[in-house]
Amino acid sequence: MIVARHPDLRTFLGLILPYAVTYGLISTGVCFAYVSFEWHWIDVSFGVLGTLGTALAIFLGFRNNSAYERWWEARKLWGQLVNASRSFARQATNLIGPDPAGEAGRASNDLAKELVYRQIAFVHALRFRLRRQDALDGLEGLIEHAELEELRRSHNPPNTLLQTQGERLGEALRRGRLEGFASRTLEVTLTDLSNVQGGCERIKNTPLPRNYLFFTRLFIVCFCVLLPLGLVESVGWWTVPLSVLLASVFSVLHHISELYEDPFENRPTDTPMTALSRTIEIDLREQLGESNNLQPLAPAKGYLL
Amino acid sequence: MIVARHPDLRTFLGLILPYAVTYGLISTGVCFAYVSFEWHWIDVSFGVLGTLGTALAIFLGFRNNSAYERWWEARKLWGQLVNASRSFARQATNLIGPDPAGEAGRASNDLAKELVYRQIAFVHALRFRLRRQDALDGLEGLIEHAELEELRRSHNPPNTLLQTQGERLGEALRRGRLEGFASRTLEVTLTDLSNVQGGCERIKNTPLPRNYLFFTRLFIVCFCVLLPLGLVESVGWWTVPLSVLLASVFSVLHHISELYEDPFENRPTDTPMTALSRTIEIDLREQLGESNNLQPLAPAKGYLL
Amino acid sequence: MIVARHPDLRTFLGLILPYAVTYGLISTGVCFAYVSFEWHWIDVSFGVLGTLGTALAIFLGFRNNSAYERWWEARKLWGQLVNASRSFARQATNLIGPDPAGEAGRASNDLAKELVYRQIAFVHALRFRLRRQDALDGLEGLIEHAELEELRRSHNPPNTLLQTQGERLGEALRRGRLEGFASRTLEVTLTDLSNVQGGCERIKNTPLPRNYLFFTRLFIVCFCVLLPLGLVESVGWWTVPLSVLLASVFSVLHHISELYEDPFENRPTDTPMTALSRTIEIDLREQLGESNNLQPLAPAKGYLL
Amino acid sequence: MIVARHPDLRTFLGLILPYAVTYGLISTGVCFAYVSFEWHWIDVSFGVLGTLGTALAIFLGFRNNSAYERWWEARKLWGQLVNASRSFARQATNLIGPDPAGEAGRASNDLAKELVYRQIAFVHALRFRLRRQDALDGLEGLIEHAELEELRRSHNPPNTLLQTQGERLGEALRRGRLEGFASRTLEVTLTDLSNVQGGCERIKNTPLPRNYLFFTRLFIVCFCVLLPLGLVESVGWWTVPLSVLLASVFSVLHHISELYEDPFENRPTDTPMTALSRTIEIDLREQLGESNNLQPLAPAKGYLL
Amino acid sequence: MIVARHPDLRTFLGLILPYAVTYGLISTGVCFAYVSFEWHWIDVSFGVLGTLGTALAIFLGFRNNSAYERWWEARKLWGQLVNASRSFARQATNLIGPDPAGEAGRASNDLAKELVYRQIAFVHALRFRLRRQDALDGLEGLIEHAELEELRRSHNPPNTLLQTQGERLGEALRRGRLEGFASRTLEVTLTDLSNVQGGCERIKNTPLPRNYLFFTRLFIVCFCVLLPLGLVESVGWWTVPLSVLLASVFSVLHHISELYEDPFENRPTDTPMTALSRTIEIDLREQLGESNNLQPLAPAKGYLL
Repeated sequence: MIVARHPDLRTFLGLILPYAVTYGLISTGVCFAYVSFEWHWIDVSFGVLGTLGTALAIFLGFRNNSAYERWWEARKLWGQLVNASRSFARQATNLIGPDPAGEAGRASNDLAKELVYRQIAFVHALRFRLRRQDALDGLEGLIEHAELEELRRSHNPPNTLLQTQGERLGEALRRGRLEGFASRTLEVTLTDLSNVQGGCERIKNTPLPRNYLFFTRLFIVCFCVLLPLGLVESVGWWTVPLSVLLASVFSVLHHISELYEDPFENRPTDTPMTALSRTIEIDLREQLGESNNLQPLAPAKGYLL
Repeated sequence: MIVARHPDLRTFLGLILPYAVTYGLISTGVCFAYVSFEWHWIDVSFGVLGTLGTALAIFLGFRNNSAYERWWEARKLWGQLVNASRSFARQATNLIGPDPAGEAGRASNDLAKELVYRQIAFVHALRFRLRRQDALDGLEGLIEHAELEELRRSHNPPNTLLQTQGERLGEALRRGRLEGFASRTLEVTLTDLSNVQGGCERIKNTPLPRNYLFFTRLFIVCFCVLLPLGLVESVGWWTVPLSVLLASVFSVLHHISELYEDPFENRPTDTPMTALSRTIEIDLREQLGESNNLQPLAPAKGYLL
Repeated sequence: MIVARHPDLRTFLGLILPYAVTYGLISTGVCFAYVSFEWHWIDVSFGVLGTLGTALAIFLGFRNNSAYERWWEARKLWGQLVNASRSFARQATNLIGPDPAGEAGRASNDLAKELVYRQIAFVHALRFRLRRQDALDGLEGLIEHAELEELRRSHNPPNTLLQTQGERLGEALRRGRLEGFASRTLEVTLTDLSNVQGGCERIKNTPLPRNYLFFTRLFIVCFCVLLPLGLVESVGWWTVPLSVLLASVFSVLHHISELYEDPFENRPTDTPMTALSRTIEIDLREQLGESNNLQPLAPAKGYLL
Repeated sequence: MIVARHPDLRTFLGLILPYAVTYGLISTGVCFAYVSFEWHWIDVSFGVLGTLGTALAIFLGFRNNSAYERWWEARKLWGQLVNASRSFARQATNLIGPDPAGEAGRASNDLAKELVYRQIAFVHALRFRLRRQDALDGLEGLIEHAELEELRRSHNPPNTLLQTQGERLGEALRRGRLEGFASRTLEVTLTDLSNVQGGCERIKNTPLPRNYLFFTRLFIVCFCVLLPLGLVESVGWWTVPLSVLLASVFSVLHHISELYEDPFENRPTDTPMTALSRTIEIDLREQLGESNNLQPLAPAKGYLL
Repeated sequence: MIVARHPDLRTFLGLILPYAVTYGLISTGVCFAYVSFEWHWIDVSFGVLGTLGTALAIFLGFRNNSAYERWWEARKLWGQLVNASRSFARQATNLIGPDPAGEAGRASNDLAKELVYRQIAFVHALRFRLRRQDALDGLEGLIEHAELEELRRSHNPPNTLLQTQGERLGEALRRGRLEGFASRTLEVTLTDLSNVQGGCERIKNTPLPRNYLFFTRLFIVCFCVLLPLGLVESVGWWTVPLSVLLASVFSVLHHISELYEDPFENRPTDTPMTALSRTIEIDLREQLGESNNLQPLAPAKGYLL
């Protein structure tokens, strides 16, 4: 996520320059051909291009909107993950009673702590899965070594972690450390976490309709290439700046919507999953009463990952 | 669902070519008539066609949006099916106690396993129903033979499976293997599954308003046919490429929205129900602690079914 | 709901013909006046009409969208009715225990059957209410005669049926045939059914803002009448087909949005309430274990009511 | 809410006439100046006005949409109030047991009746609050005199009524007239009612962004005033009807969106709160088994308040 | 939030003047150059600018919509905070029983009062956090001094307050002052409050895509600067007012959407968090039965903070 209000201009130049140069060269060529070589047959009336441009702007508007909605839904899902993690920690620390077979206070605390740590592990594991990173080692210290080994063999580590949470809560219930209604409360939160995971996987695995993207891009390129032919007769050498401007508007806005439509790809425009995982870890450790020195991630080069 | 980032160009050509050829021939004919035979009376001013094109672009934009929303809702429903299936399996394996009348551990496991297998069967049965496939044989091994026979006689196999889940949970409750709150938790998940089924049936059985589709298509065809008449006077032989481009923009985007508006029709643009059923089967078997060698489906020819 | 993929062309002709003929006559008159009588003062420049047409297309696009959203929400509500009916039947058949004061198995079944039958009656009664049909006789056989008599005196039969469901469940609870959590589960489903009823009544009783509709129609008529005056100078007799085409685009799309904005009016474009009631009746009887010979409704003349 | 399908034309005339007259006079003046006094310098090319008109149409389209969404959300909230009221009455009459310290049947009925009457009072009180009416006297007969006195001193009468409902249910719980799960069911319904109240207050107290409204109106006025200057050269005296038509389209649609964006202001375009309160009162009294002669409100002058 | 229906004109002038002056100077310069110095080469045909303007209007329309939706979502979240606070107070005062180990009536009231006061503190603390204000001193009198000290050391004071609420409710449960179902009811409300907090943080910390904003602004500036070049040939000195008008439409609407897209920044266009906190405090104290003299905040200079 780009957070800097006035970010590095080089990033922006890097985005617009390829289009500006390409269409600048094309339109310069067209002007030479028309003015110097007098190839008047290349003139195309602007009228039809205007209609085409309006139509493409409408389609591009809807497409930008769809891309933005995907990006925003991804952010909402991670927001729900923050909320559900805090609620899960609050419920685990307050609703689980002492182990009747153990030393009361300590044991109670132990199970809550184990559950909250595993919840932190779930958050990290979900991030690794969405970014296709093989980084389960990062969970060392949050779950036991044996569980980590088992996790490595799993097809779906976050789901396995939720399954283990369910097992531990089932045990607590059978041992009488958890009452029925509290089991239900915690299970509802686990279901919310399942829904967050499934929602993120849906966005990750289901691209926007490829057909639509391919043809929108194709038609925008055709439009931008034809533009100088439609302008050269009436505006002469002004064709170059005007073509570059109009072509940049369409190309750049299309390019940006491509950046935002897939928000889990390790790019500066991503949902800031690393930063949000850190936020969750800080809050949950605080809820356990741990003093920790973790700091929120600071943006680097104007963005947060 | 098309997943390949740079899919087979032939697919795209197959989509655009019919329109390009048709409108190419029409506009070539118009140019011959105007230039060679000097039928100047066929000239139509472009002005009104520009307004018509803008209006159609607006309507087409909304229509594309509706088609995309249907497709995305279908995908969301199947995402909810993934989530609810995982939650159901977690709840069934952890909340059902041992059979007081049986050998404790084993029997408990047996009922959970039966319920999770039947949940996998529900997912497959829903897919068969949505694709109108008579493939209940594929459930062999997931439910008992007698139940499968009964299912064949059912008007609505997925609903019958949910009803059986409800019956088995009711029995477990009466035998004391399930407490009240846990029965409620599982029943809420069954209700979620009912809602997913109903939502998919709604999309399957309710096409977008046919009137609207028919007339949008009719007006787009009229517009594309008249286009060369509006261009030929001012741009001469440029009429051919410009007509083909503009007609393709409208025709192709309309065609694509027709592909996406019905997402359960055994087409490459479908919701990938087969792949998602496989994902669910892998995850649920893992939650049961089964080692299985099932692999996620790999895309073939750039798409997943 | 129109289901036929290639429906009767007469329906479509019936929709477009009145507009095509009206505006055909008007534009023919204008052409005669301009060409034959040389009334050149009737010429209006097309420029301003183009801007007006674009503006009206934008407003019409939003209006079509609102109409479609109403129609789709109506369909969603009936989809929820299908889902909640199935869930209610599953819960009633599985969560209600035998009557301690009666012969166990039989009596238990009797109450569940009564409740499920009354749920079917609720679905039909809601349909009658939305279509303003006085057809409560159709509930004969589903509820007892005395209850039907009482229902005839009710201001709001579907709500009275839900109230009776609540009463019967309250009794079952007090007699110990239903546990607390199960009472809550069934009550949540009754609340869902109340919400469906209220949602349908909202759409039925709250038309789209009449002011907006009146003026949109008025402005579209003005635009269509002025169109030939804006075209006749530049395109001569082409004025007739072009006016008819453009006027038909606006008039027909407006007309269609009027058909869809009120989905409970006994029209071919309605939500198919009769067909969905039948689906629910088939599914619920099957859930009761009844063998029934009811068949889903087949579309007649290309549509389902 | 305007319900009449063909309402009083005077209402519509009253809406359009001020704009038609104003812009008619302005454009007549412009024509005189141009044609009679030959002030040719007042001519403005239409081109830029066409672009401005299209831009304003787009902004106005979004604005109309936002206004409609507010109005529709207000109606949805009152629909939820209808649903939640019916559910509350169903739950209160069926889930509350007899007072163990009282005469069984009678006392039970008494508490349910008190709660349902207070729910009717809540509906009326919410309406008074939204319309800023000091009309609490209308609750006489629904709640006791002492409670009414206390209500007059409250800052927020509907919330105080919900608080009292909560208190009475808490008492019933402590006396054993209500079981835990039933208390939860009724409390969930009270929370729904709180949400409806809060939602209505949000719409009432948060106008659409004033800046946006002010400038949209300003720009529309500028556009409408400049219009005749852009038309007079090319269409002469046609300027008058065309300016009036185009200016009316923008002004009237803008005016209408102002009517709908605030739906709780005692205007014919309001959410019909009085009619809906009556509907709720009829239904709830019927659910109590009372025979009442209340009739639904009939529209007066084509609208319902 | 700006509430005044006819607010201070100076505010509006302050908004539009910078743009009007800048573009007024530019267009005057262009007119001088064209008319006085006869630099005819600066003329740019308006055609392409019209298309560019339409495209930018479409993109700006979507962008305004996104900004409005963020602002409205922020207001909805604070509305939910109002609702959940009222429900929490109602539940706390009515569902918590007397302390078996204390003097009955008094002690019960004490815990409810403590919880409701801490809820008020939560609302204020959330506001301080969203506005980045270090103002925890304002909570003096609502929570105990020791708790306030601890809060100062917290990374996330609102979450710490919710954690404390959970702890106190957990204690009440273990002491038997709260039954299981009531604990669940209150925990559900705490989860709602967690969701409100997380939602607000999401809007606060996730700006709209910066790339998109940067380029939209850039393209609008380019368009406004080029405008006079496109007008000067055809309309002469009319270029100045027309350029100023069209440039103001785009610049002002863009500027306004920037004001609304970030609703937690201590600006007049903010969500009125101070006023809503006051409303909550008044309502909750009234629910506790306290007589208080707090008054709702009155708008100052036409807006509420």
